[in-house]
Amino acid sequence: MSESAAKLKETFKNAPYKLGAHSDRTVQVLMEAFRNVEEELESDMYGAGAAIEDFQGKMAAFLGKEAAVFFPSGTMAQQIALRIWCDRRELKRVAYHPLCHLEIHEEDGLKKLHGIEAVLLADRDRVVGADDVLGMREEVACVLLELPQREIGGQLPPYEELEAISAYCRERGIRLHLDGARLLESLPYYGKTAAEVCALFDSVYLSVYKGIGGVAGAVLAGDASFAAESKVWKRRHGGDLISLYPYVLSADYYFERRKDEMGRYYEEAKELAARFNACEGVSTRPETPVTNMFHVHLAMPKEEAEAWLTSVIQGAGVGVTSYAKEAGDGASYFEISIGDRYGTIPPSRLDGLFERMKKGLPHQSS
Amino acid sequence: MSESAAKLKETFKNAPYKLGAHSDRTVQVLMEAFRNVEEELESDMYGAGAAIEDFQGKMAAFLGKEAAVFFPSGTMAQQIALRIWCDRRELKRVAYHPLCHLEIHEEDGLKKLHGIEAVLLADRDRVVGADDVLGMREEVACVLLELPQREIGGQLPPYEELEAISAYCRERGIRLHLDGARLLESLPYYGKTAAEVCALFDSVYLSVYKGIGGVAGAVLAGDASFAAESKVWKRRHGGDLISLYPYVLSADYYFERRKDEMGRYYEEAKELAARFNACEGVSTRPETPVTNMFHVHLAMPKEEAEAWLTSVIQGAGVGVTSYAKEAGDGASYFEISIGDRYGTIPPSRLDGLFERMKKGLPHQSS
Repeated sequence: MSESAAKLKETFKNAPYKLGAHSDRTVQVLMEAFRNVEEELESDMYGAGAAIEDFQGKMAAFLGKEAAVFFPSGTMAQQIALRIWCDRRELKRVAYHPLCHLEIHEEDGLKKLHGIEAVLLADRDRVVGADDVLGMREEVACVLLELPQREIGGQLPPYEELEAISAYCRERGIRLHLDGARLLESLPYYGKTAAEVCALFDSVYLSVYKGIGGVAGAVLAGDASFAAESKVWKRRHGGDLISLYPYVLSADYYFERRKDEMGRYYEEAKELAARFNACEGVSTRPETPVTNMFHVHLAMPKEEAEAWLTSVIQGAGVGVTSYAKEAGDGASYFEISIGDRYGTIPPSRLDGLFERMKKGLPHQSS
Repeated sequence: MSESAAKLKETFKNAPYKLGAHSDRTVQVLMEAFRNVEEELESDMYGAGAAIEDFQGKMAAFLGKEAAVFFPSGTMAQQIALRIWCDRRELKRVAYHPLCHLEIHEEDGLKKLHGIEAVLLADRDRVVGADDVLGMREEVACVLLELPQREIGGQLPPYEELEAISAYCRERGIRLHLDGARLLESLPYYGKTAAEVCALFDSVYLSVYKGIGGVAGAVLAGDASFAAESKVWKRRHGGDLISLYPYVLSADYYFERRKDEMGRYYEEAKELAARFNACEGVSTRPETPVTNMFHVHLAMPKEEAEAWLTSVIQGAGVGVTSYAKEAGDGASYFEISIGDRYGTIPPSRLDGLFERMKKGLPHQSS
């Protein structure tokens, strides 16, 4: 890590207030969730028992599916979902966005463990639309859609596009899988319930540690036979742990606490993005957020951005970001996801932050 | 579950004392481990950070290997170890015991995810010896030995056999992997340190929730390049969780508490097995335990054993077992693993238990 990157990370860490997330990722997240759990509660045992089944039942109902299965990770849950749909169709090919988690963050697990190849839909800088799916030349067993598309700032296609894609896939016998890592965060924009959105999909994965803010883990939901088969694959992957309760019980705790807060995070994200966009050389992607998240692009290279952000954070006492990444063409960017923390920042602090950001314009700071 | 099986399970659960294990598997196991953890401690992040690296370093030193990696499960760790050794030799074949965990408890993950086939060594009812390995006809990339062989009551080969197998494999370029789920439990019998035993092997897996008694998880150790490669596969399997600290920190807590208690558990297991063997129609396997564990065989069918055990537990107030399994030929058996709990049973209770077991002889109880 370069000196300027380390300095920014450290400065962010020590800032008294921070823009994004619910809290720092400390052991406190687990300990708070367990504060009121009964010590006598029996552990789940290899996927059985109330400690896991109760939450799975709750999530199945919430997502409007017959059954839900708790997984240690979304990486495991999604590879397994795609494998099941490929096996059913006896075709080891799926389609997804070029910046899909499976394509860029999983060391090619889908190919190396399951021998499944992927057709890439749409371009890197826009979401998948109905035209992309209807125009596919290769036959695939399953299409995966990510709502929102995280790597491009959390963008969402219009709901009508989802309906068109779902109708087309159903007609052709292509399974539609939802990468709903941030599904809850998408609901306020669509004005739909989770079950309404999930009804368009055959299977759905949900992360319990993003908007929900648990410790780790994922939920995979679908019909009963899909869920049963996913449990066999979960064992094969080494994910059928003797005890998953540390993740399950904390997921349940934070789900109850935050499931109805997503509308507030969304409104706050729009408000915050507008303030960034009012600074010269600073712009958000999307310009108007459609979830609790967005990317902030700076018209300056990474190292310069790191130094500038460090001085802004030190001056304002508000942590903006812990890092900056190259965006190409001498620009840089970072991601913001709004959680509980944003609402705790005194308005005067935010005012001070954006006064500084406007004053120290990126192109003048070098 | 049959009525007699359910009755035995319930009776065991409510018994004031119990022969095996450290404690009931409740949420208390996690909560005790976290009682003195600082809430400000930062989470591990995808395998990085002090919360995971400190324990990995400690385990590498303990096992005498260059590096150790924490995994969510032994299932995942061992498939990955075998995959790495197969890739290195460009040969997708390994050898292990017919009752190896990979063969009977993992839904064929090794074959279905990694395409690795297995040669079975020795017979189901005895441990693998040097003759079995030296007599192999097929070429293999790796031999896996499980110490102790759990499914036959926790048996161990003589140490000289291990040395002979290790020397032979090294000479032939065959990698030797240790399924050391219960490695610590084997050390008192061998009179060796963990590092001494592990020096015979190229890679080693250790469970943190058996003798150690953590919540879940496993450690995989080997040389630095093996460990680095295992982390890539861990990500592919979906085991590279954003936070593994609930398992890591509890593993560390119970490792420190129990690593020096294995000799006591072993002595207690021998004492307890002798008392079982003094009852007619009751015998242990092995007759004299070589670790903290053994199987208890009853000369009566499963259902009859369930009813008899239920009445013994009710009368003595000591939980013997929560289940009985078919052993063939009208016999049945159950497993005992000695942990912290055995030493807390008042001697008079144990005397009462074995008086009852001797009185109510299995062949008279029908």
